[in-house]
Amino acid sequence: MGLLIETPLPHGGRLVERVVTDPEVGKKMAKMAKAVYDIKPTLHYETGVPVRNVYREIMSICYGFFSPVEGSMKQAELERVLKERRLLSEWIFPYPMLFDISEEDYKELGVEVGDRVLLRLKGKPFAVIDVEEIYRINPEEVATRTFGTPEDNPEVVREPFDKKHPGWVIYRSMNPVILAGKYTIINEPKLMPPFDRFWYPPRKSREEYAKRGWRTVINHQTRNVPHVGHEMLMKSAGFTGDIEPCHGIQVNAIIGVKRRGDYPDEAIVEGHEMVHLGGYIKPERHLVTICLWDMRYGNPIESMLHGIIRQNMGCTHHMFGRDHAAVGEYYDMYATQILWGKGIPSFGIPKPLNEVPYGLQIRAQNMAEFWYCPHCNEIAYSGCCNHAKEKQKFSGSFVRGMVAEGVFPPKVIFRPEVYKVIVKWWKKFGYPFCNEKYVKEKEERLEVELPDMEV
Amino acid sequence: MGLLIETPLPHGGRLVERVVTDPEVGKKMAKMAKAVYDIKPTLHYETGVPVRNVYREIMSICYGFFSPVEGSMKQAELERVLKERRLLSEWIFPYPMLFDISEEDYKELGVEVGDRVLLRLKGKPFAVIDVEEIYRINPEEVATRTFGTPEDNPEVVREPFDKKHPGWVIYRSMNPVILAGKYTIINEPKLMPPFDRFWYPPRKSREEYAKRGWRTVINHQTRNVPHVGHEMLMKSAGFTGDIEPCHGIQVNAIIGVKRRGDYPDEAIVEGHEMVHLGGYIKPERHLVTICLWDMRYGNPIESMLHGIIRQNMGCTHHMFGRDHAAVGEYYDMYATQILWGKGIPSFGIPKPLNEVPYGLQIRAQNMAEFWYCPHCNEIAYSGCCNHAKEKQKFSGSFVRGMVAEGVFPPKVIFRPEVYKVIVKWWKKFGYPFCNEKYVKEKEERLEVELPDMEV
Repeated sequence: MGLLIETPLPHGGRLVERVVTDPEVGKKMAKMAKAVYDIKPTLHYETGVPVRNVYREIMSICYGFFSPVEGSMKQAELERVLKERRLLSEWIFPYPMLFDISEEDYKELGVEVGDRVLLRLKGKPFAVIDVEEIYRINPEEVATRTFGTPEDNPEVVREPFDKKHPGWVIYRSMNPVILAGKYTIINEPKLMPPFDRFWYPPRKSREEYAKRGWRTVINHQTRNVPHVGHEMLMKSAGFTGDIEPCHGIQVNAIIGVKRRGDYPDEAIVEGHEMVHLGGYIKPERHLVTICLWDMRYGNPIESMLHGIIRQNMGCTHHMFGRDHAAVGEYYDMYATQILWGKGIPSFGIPKPLNEVPYGLQIRAQNMAEFWYCPHCNEIAYSGCCNHAKEKQKFSGSFVRGMVAEGVFPPKVIFRPEVYKVIVKWWKKFGYPFCNEKYVKEKEERLEVELPDMEV
Repeated sequence: MGLLIETPLPHGGRLVERVVTDPEVGKKMAKMAKAVYDIKPTLHYETGVPVRNVYREIMSICYGFFSPVEGSMKQAELERVLKERRLLSEWIFPYPMLFDISEEDYKELGVEVGDRVLLRLKGKPFAVIDVEEIYRINPEEVATRTFGTPEDNPEVVREPFDKKHPGWVIYRSMNPVILAGKYTIINEPKLMPPFDRFWYPPRKSREEYAKRGWRTVINHQTRNVPHVGHEMLMKSAGFTGDIEPCHGIQVNAIIGVKRRGDYPDEAIVEGHEMVHLGGYIKPERHLVTICLWDMRYGNPIESMLHGIIRQNMGCTHHMFGRDHAAVGEYYDMYATQILWGKGIPSFGIPKPLNEVPYGLQIRAQNMAEFWYCPHCNEIAYSGCCNHAKEKQKFSGSFVRGMVAEGVFPPKVIFRPEVYKVIVKWWKKFGYPFCNEKYVKEKEERLEVELPDMEV
């Protein structure tokens, strides 16, 4: 009966690595392409605002964050994912991964099964897709089946998904023609500051843990600049482990298209970094990392992807709070904890995610709420503090309201060092929170630069 | 791969229960005794101050806290415990359990192997011992072999044990004649207030956990009135669990002979109770319990007993800090964590305690230090806080000094409600900390009353 928890295997057994690092080899591979396609952001099917950029999926797939997925899914695999949340290889996987193009682009490309397409990003060679199948989808049907319905998934779906849900909109906005096949990055992008120093693809993160002597690592999913409540969640969940608290506390920020009112990605990563620069968590126990992905806000569905990403990175544990990766009230607020604690049969998961065949190895730590309690004189855990009348909840909108008013928030809500990061990027962008301008400029700027490559 | 941790089996496979609850049966059993012996406290071999009362061991054995031990050990078992920390039945057990009498008492009793001795406590029938073997010990040798030596146990013993160590003194002060055999309580004692409401012998504690729906329970060992640092240790270690934090946080106070300067037992149990009465840990998540035992302060050796006690009570986890159950610098300050983390071969434990055959099932959670950090503005964990220059350690002697001066301590050190418990018993006894008077009176008063029983 060994109690020590070891680094989990990559999901599917081995890390996917589809990045050609030798430019000469990349050039050769690019030259074999039958056609060239310029990657464009997916635009909202009604408003035309960017909602997704497939380049982020290609990056996450080729660097192994989404192992064992290697490319855009074939129709049979898409069907299985939607029905049972499994790949054809049996391994659990939650979301469709699709390379979608318009009928016009399809005609113009003139590609067939067996052809290679060179994908350009910001006008430069970036990756290739080797087309194994071409088929059509009904985007609205894919959108609805991805997230579930109250009728089909009564355990956790409370309201039908619609255009107020940003994840549903992403699938609904897709083009109808799918090129299925494996991706290979043939011209390695360079992450731009400040993202470059948080770029730890699975191979590198695993090496980093080993270098630091971390056997157990708990991941914190974020899309926020951390207030003190988030910090306490991280520190507290960090006491999970095996015979001692987790050696490492990792933050993995999902970087991608923002919603209006979100903090800018730059402030999110530097805000988390400030938690260790400010000494609130020891730098040697804290690692801030990123993953490129346009959040789908799929609560339990999204939590599977988060588990897969962090297991691939080498984490042993993943903290999940209430309303994990949620927006609105489409899902039960504990849907993610239900999935990891007992399973959701209607989504094809009849047992906890760690106990189904071909399931996950990373372990969930399901956490309740934190609030400020003046009687306890601390950020208190709802599983401990019994001063319900005195508690002061961390309301996201209250905190945002304070920031928007330019009020320097009390130390009990924001660490001053962290708040200064918000102000730094506020000055840079001219606004504290994301707006349409940020989203549009971000989708032109992206998070990467590409080296020149003559093909 | 099931991740949910279930209530452990009792150590040795089943709970020892050797308490006759029907007074008529008890009376019959008492009448079969060949002789009568009045239990007396063991007195310090030099000073004559009480250092132990065997009645506490008899209680803990017969109510199953020390399962699978059923009585005073035979010579071969004593030898095996000293050498390999195992019973003859193979199960791990750390300490000699002995019923020792003087040569004079032995002569006067006139008992032989096969006889039953009626043991009286406070002048009333209490228990019987059925003598299976009579032998002699060299108390000093038993004392030294119990705790180890720097030569024999170089992994963790730093200084030779001597009369400054209260546990060594307990064994050194024992009488030379050992009556070995099983104990049976034939007249059930009644715990006196305030101890009665904290009396949860293993059968009852297991029932209580089930009633509360606790699957996972972490134990906190105490011999202190809890300051805020202790409270934070309990709350923080409570985040350990399996897929969610431990359902229950149990305090198990070791009640017995005190050292000068200790808090009185009454203040200790009511101080811990105040943690939930004051709402700092929810009452439904917190249980304060006691075990009768004169602490031996054997650090790693004592931690085995603590693990056994709490496993028998049904706990799944046990938190261990630095210098667990330690006094002086006889042991390495991490000796207990070494024992549970990798084993101490020279004590017969070549692997972690959970991994040796016939070992323990309860899991250790090895914790580092807590201190007050003005920068973090909280009781910070040394595994997180990086403000080494600003930290303010919880020094036991500093806190005691403040209490002794009658200074109402700052809220950041003592919860006011908890501090008032200290004051309550201070007024009652006339002193805030144990002194010789308390120890002597306590050994007359004990923690129990016995019903009348005519034999």
